Amino acid sequence: MFAVTILGSNSALPMHNRHPTSQLVQFGEYQFLVDCGEGTQMQMNRFKIKRNRIRHIFISHLHGDHYFGLPGLLAGYGLNGRTEDLWVYSPPMLKEIIEIQFGPSDTVLPYPLHFVSIEKGGILLDEPSIRVKCFRVSHSVPCWGFLFEEKEKQPKLNMEKLAQYQIPATDFRRLKAGEDFITPEGKIIPNGELTLPPDAPRSYAFCADTLYDETIASHCRDVSLLYHEATYLKSNYEKAKRHMHSTTQEAATIAKKANAGRLIIGHFSSRYETLDAMVEEAREIFPNTDLALEGVTYLV
Amino acid sequence: MFAVTILGSNSALPMHNRHPTSQLVQFGEYQFLVDCGEGTQMQMNRFKIKRNRIRHIFISHLHGDHYFGLPGLLAGYGLNGRTEDLWVYSPPMLKEIIEIQFGPSDTVLPYPLHFVSIEKGGILLDEPSIRVKCFRVSHSVPCWGFLFEEKEKQPKLNMEKLAQYQIPATDFRRLKAGEDFITPEGKIIPNGELTLPPDAPRSYAFCADTLYDETIASHCRDVSLLYHEATYLKSNYEKAKRHMHSTTQEAATIAKKANAGRLIIGHFSSRYETLDAMVEEAREIFPNTDLALEGVTYLV
Repeated sequence: MFAVTILGSNSALPMHNRHPTSQLVQFGEYQFLVDCGEGTQMQMNRFKIKRNRIRHIFISHLHGDHYFGLPGLLAGYGLNGRTEDLWVYSPPMLKEIIEIQFGPSDTVLPYPLHFVSIEKGGILLDEPSIRVKCFRVSHSVPCWGFLFEEKEKQPKLNMEKLAQYQIPATDFRRLKAGEDFITPEGKIIPNGELTLPPDAPRSYAFCADTLYDETIASHCRDVSLLYHEATYLKSNYEKAKRHMHSTTQEAATIAKKANAGRLIIGHFSSRYETLDAMVEEAREIFPNTDLALEGVTYLV
Repeated sequence: MFAVTILGSNSALPMHNRHPTSQLVQFGEYQFLVDCGEGTQMQMNRFKIKRNRIRHIFISHLHGDHYFGLPGLLAGYGLNGRTEDLWVYSPPMLKEIIEIQFGPSDTVLPYPLHFVSIEKGGILLDEPSIRVKCFRVSHSVPCWGFLFEEKEKQPKLNMEKLAQYQIPATDFRRLKAGEDFITPEGKIIPNGELTLPPDAPRSYAFCADTLYDETIASHCRDVSLLYHEATYLKSNYEKAKRHMHSTTQEAATIAKKANAGRLIIGHFSSRYETLDAMVEEAREIFPNTDLALEGVTYLV
C-alpha cells in the first residue's frame, strides 16, 4: 500500500476540531511522518495509528504549527522503550530546539536520534524501493516540500506464457530481474515474451506552506497524488499573498500545471468553519480535488 | 467564584482520552493556568474555556508532560493579537527553551511576555484579593507546588443592625473597612455591633508531581481543596517510589495530615484504563476524595 493519512489539516491554530499539520505516509513496510504539529500523538491515538514503524520524520519548516508536537512524540518513544534509530529531517536549528528541552528534564533517549539539516533540494533518503526528495517552496521562513517516489518496479510475470513453456517457479525471480529463460533444450526465450511491463511508479508530493510558485509544478511533474496547501478562498487572495500562503485556485492551478493525478488541499484557515466552498473552488480548475480530512487515508 | 477546571489528568503520555497535566484556576476575575501539557489549547477549545483573561501561568517543573503545550499557547495568543502582559513562573531554563523556538519562525509576540524563574519557596504573586505561593515538592527535577490563598475578607454587614441605627448606605464601605459609626448625636456604635465576621478565606493547593513528602502537608495546612498526584495504585508502591511519584493512599495521607477540606487526585498512569479503584483506595484514608476528571470544575 502507498497511502497518506491526514492527522492534522488546519493552519496555525487548532480550531473547529481540526488540528495543526501532520501526515502519515505509508509505503509497504515504511511509515514516514510529515510535519508534527501540536497534538500529533493524540491524533495518532485517535486514529489508532501504530507509530513504531516510523523511522523518518520530515519537518517542512519551523513554524510551530508544523513541529510543536515533535518533543512530545520523541519523548513518548523514549518512555515506550524504543530502541530503533530515528531520523528527523528539517531546516537548521531543530536539533538545538529539541536538545535544549531534554536538558532540564534529564531526558536520555533510549534510541539513537539523528537530525539531518536540510540546506538544499535533492534526495534526502534513498531506500531500495522508494526515495524521498525535497524541493524548496516559497514561504516566510526556509520551507521545503517533499516528494515520495516509488522506484521503477520489476516487470510482472506473464503467467499464461510461463505455463505454456512450463517454466519452474524457481526461475521466477530471475525473470522478474530481466533475465531470459533457457529451455533444457538450450532454446532462448526472451524475457519480453515471458513478462509484462510493470505498473508505472507512483509518487506523492507534500507541498507544505507556500505562496503560489510554479517551480513546484515542475518539481512535481506527473505526480500521482499532490497535497497542496489552500489556506484561503480565492476572495482572500490578498491575505494569502501577505501571509505567503495559497488560495484554493492557486493550489488547483499547480496541480493542473504539474499534470497531477489527484489533488488534496489542506492547511485551512480557522476563519472557515465549513470547507465545501474550498473544494468547489479548487474543482473549477482541477476537478479531481478533495479536501484533506483528518483520519482519512488517501491512496497514492 | 473560586474553582479549578481540570484540562489534563494523565501522566507522561496522552492515553485513554486523558491528556497531560493542565488546570485552570479561576478566582473572581482572575484566571490562572497551572501547567500546560501538550494539547492544552485543544482542551481549552473542547471545554470552551475563554483564555484571554489568563495573565499568570505557573509551570511546576520542566518535564514535557507539564509544559510542551506552552509554545503553542503563547504563539496562539500572538496570532490572536493579544496585547496584555503575560507572566510565566517556572524553574529556570524555560525562557531559553521558549525563546529558541521563536527564533527560526521569526515570531515576534505582540504582547509583553515575562518569565519568572522560581528558585525558592515563598510568595510568587500578591494581588489585592489573592496571593499565590510556591513550595518545593520531591521529584526527580526541581519541582514546585502552588498554593492559591484568598486573602482575609472584609466583615459582612449586619443589615438588621444597620436598619435599627438608620445608617445611610454611603457609610457601608467604611464599616466594611472596620470603622465605627458615629451618630449625628455623637454617639459611637462600635464596628463589631454592626458587622458579622467574614467567611473564612478559601485556598487551593496544587501539589504537582512528587514522592510522598510530609512537608507538603505542612505547606497546605487547612487548605480548602487539595490536588495531589496519585500516579499509581498502592500495589505499585515500589514503582511509585522509583519514579518519584505517589500512590493513591499516599495522596490521601497527605490530605489527612494537612486537614484538607477535600482532595482531588490526578496524574494517572496510562496503565490504568479505568480509575474507580484509585478513588476507592484513596477514600479508605481520606473519604472526601474525588478523581480529577477532565472538563470538570471543582469548587474551592
